[in-house]
Amino acid sequence: RALTIGLIPGDGIGKEVIPAGRRVLEALPASLGLKFDFVDLNAGWETFEKTGVALPEETVQTLQGCNGGLFGAVSSPTTAVKGYSSPIVALRKRLALYANVRPVKTVATAKKPIDMVIVRENTEDLYVKEEKTYDTPEGKVAEAIKRISEKASTNIAAMAGEIALRRQKIRASGSPSIHKGPLVTVTHKSNVLSQTDGLFRTASKAALADPKFSSIKVEEQIVDSMVYKLFRQPEAYDVIVAPNLYGDILSDGAAALVGSLGLVPSANVGKTFALGEPCHGSAPDIQGQGISNPIATIRSAALMLEFLDEEEAAAKIYAAVDANLEEGKFVSPDLGGSAKTEEVLQDILRRL
Amino acid sequence: RALTIGLIPGDGIGKEVIPAGRRVLEALPASLGLKFDFVDLNAGWETFEKTGVALPEETVQTLQGCNGGLFGAVSSPTTAVKGYSSPIVALRKRLALYANVRPVKTVATAKKPIDMVIVRENTEDLYVKEEKTYDTPEGKVAEAIKRISEKASTNIAAMAGEIALRRQKIRASGSPSIHKGPLVTVTHKSNVLSQTDGLFRTASKAALADPKFSSIKVEEQIVDSMVYKLFRQPEAYDVIVAPNLYGDILSDGAAALVGSLGLVPSANVGKTFALGEPCHGSAPDIQGQGISNPIATIRSAALMLEFLDEEEAAAKIYAAVDANLEEGKFVSPDLGGSAKTEEVLQDILRRL
Ligand SMILES: CC(C)[C@H](C(=O)O)[C@@H](O)C(=O)O
Ligand SMILES: CC(C)[C@H](C(=O)O)[C@@H](O)C(=O)O
Repeated sequence: RALTIGLIPGDGIGKEVIPAGRRVLEALPASLGLKFDFVDLNAGWETFEKTGVALPEETVQTLQGCNGGLFGAVSSPTTAVKGYSSPIVALRKRLALYANVRPVKTVATAKKPIDMVIVRENTEDLYVKEEKTYDTPEGKVAEAIKRISEKASTNIAAMAGEIALRRQKIRASGSPSIHKGPLVTVTHKSNVLSQTDGLFRTASKAALADPKFSSIKVEEQIVDSMVYKLFRQPEAYDVIVAPNLYGDILSDGAAALVGSLGLVPSANVGKTFALGEPCHGSAPDIQGQGISNPIATIRSAALMLEFLDEEEAAAKIYAAVDANLEEGKFVSPDLGGSAKTEEVLQDILRRL
Repeated sequence: RALTIGLIPGDGIGKEVIPAGRRVLEALPASLGLKFDFVDLNAGWETFEKTGVALPEETVQTLQGCNGGLFGAVSSPTTAVKGYSSPIVALRKRLALYANVRPVKTVATAKKPIDMVIVRENTEDLYVKEEKTYDTPEGKVAEAIKRISEKASTNIAAMAGEIALRRQKIRASGSPSIHKGPLVTVTHKSNVLSQTDGLFRTASKAALADPKFSSIKVEEQIVDSMVYKLFRQPEAYDVIVAPNLYGDILSDGAAALVGSLGLVPSANVGKTFALGEPCHGSAPDIQGQGISNPIATIRSAALMLEFLDEEEAAAKIYAAVDANLEEGKFVSPDLGGSAKTEEVLQDILRRL
């Protein structure tokens, strides 16, 4: 099978980790029968500075013809810059990548093993970015819309349910496992936002009440309490489903539990396309030193393959990464080691 | 000085911890010259079930004539119940309690000492609760308004600055301290919400640029990254200022770091009134067993006194609680001990 993959390194260490992801895909054993065509694409702050556009139309259109993609990271200004808007937020909407899937796990031999997946709605909530500002006698006031739809909530909860079932199957096949599962925890703040988060809650629960999910236990957590529990008993969670912004916050929190954002992958998933994206940012402070951790991107490449139904290839990559981490010999500085990006990559490549 | 204090136990363990707070206030040494008058007031889910109103008008009006108050916890339904609306959210607005101050600290002898204060804007953001729902061909859609004003952002940042200065003074007076400080970290998500969170950011930074805050270092963190850092290096933070919802989430996260929500106090602060409120909820699962941890409430009583300019009385209470925790003999189950609420209370009372 031939797969066309768009590569968007973006800014900062995005340019160091995306090539690593590419090399892992290229090094997959021929026996898998996969052939990759890579297309280099632009987006991000540097692109904006050069061209006045952060997400070139060409990038979007090329991706529409690809099977999947890898997105590095982009530097975003914290102040509003006229014409600039985050390309990853825009891409998620343009390509209808309705789910952001973020598995967070330690190696099975960890002292406190954690193995959860955060499933984040990826297109609405406050990310619709409909804002306005007006003047009042007491100064400026700004408003943003938080939008939650029954449709998107239903879809994301169904995705969470599918993932919980898939994990159940993997466990049943004897893979080392930590969780009883399958469990989906619906996160919201409906005690304050009874209509918006209330809708997320009822639509999610309705979707998960489908008979095909009958083996799944469904629980709910108010988002503040979810963050508390995430830190107090992370081993208790299997799949967590959340609206966009809470999902953003929860996945960074969960990443802290496994030691580094440099380990945590994500996939932006649509009906027929998956875009792998490491959870970390562009990290300008370490850019150019060759010490960024390529694992989040390598795992994102595997996650992308999973959603393109290439589970065997994905499993090979996961196993190589886990073996690298379990041995703990070539470990990048974010994890307390001193290995360079290239050394971590080489160690993973030889294990494929 | 005579102080009139309104007591609102609310639901669940609120009824067990508020009396403990009262008894600590009553037991303060006479040498402090404080006289307390207590008024018992109703609010919460039980009140709603009995009367159809969660926050009786009488409660609001009586509080308006008080110097301060203690609020326990209320049980809120997670589904919209007609006519029910969270009384604490309403009280914050009705009494213009614009700041929610949440100190999170371990005892000084802790292995990983943490000592930070989360200063949460308390009246706006998504808590304005302006929501609507409409039907579309694809199902229901709900929207909520997130409102951020220059005025409230300026006020809350100034409060954060004042608290950072006060902490600097306490440190200078030789109190055991962990932080270099003074540092205020402004938390927002202006890379996505450039207008609303952008306004919070610029107004906060402008307020903190006042010459009276010139000794304070001002930093900023995007909220997702803030949660990550909070867990990776909590010792690095002094005062964190945030819009309402992020403050809600961050303070639960910080509470997880010190071992239990049962330790973390808060004060809802207005220009001339302060309402102490433990950060924990009504915990129906442990209600009636006499095992709830009274410390969050006792510390909330002290925090209330601080904002009523009774710092000496507050310091006495803090010291008694710290001594209880450092000795570790009478410790409630949430912290791994087996002491009853009454035993923890007695141990603190005898240390006053
Ligand atoms: C960079 C930013 C817009 C983005 C988000 O908030 O979605 C990032 O935090 C992420 O989690 O992918
Ligand atoms: C009970 C709820 C409305 C409240 C809030 O969100 O403010 C609580 O979580 C808190 O932190 O005081």
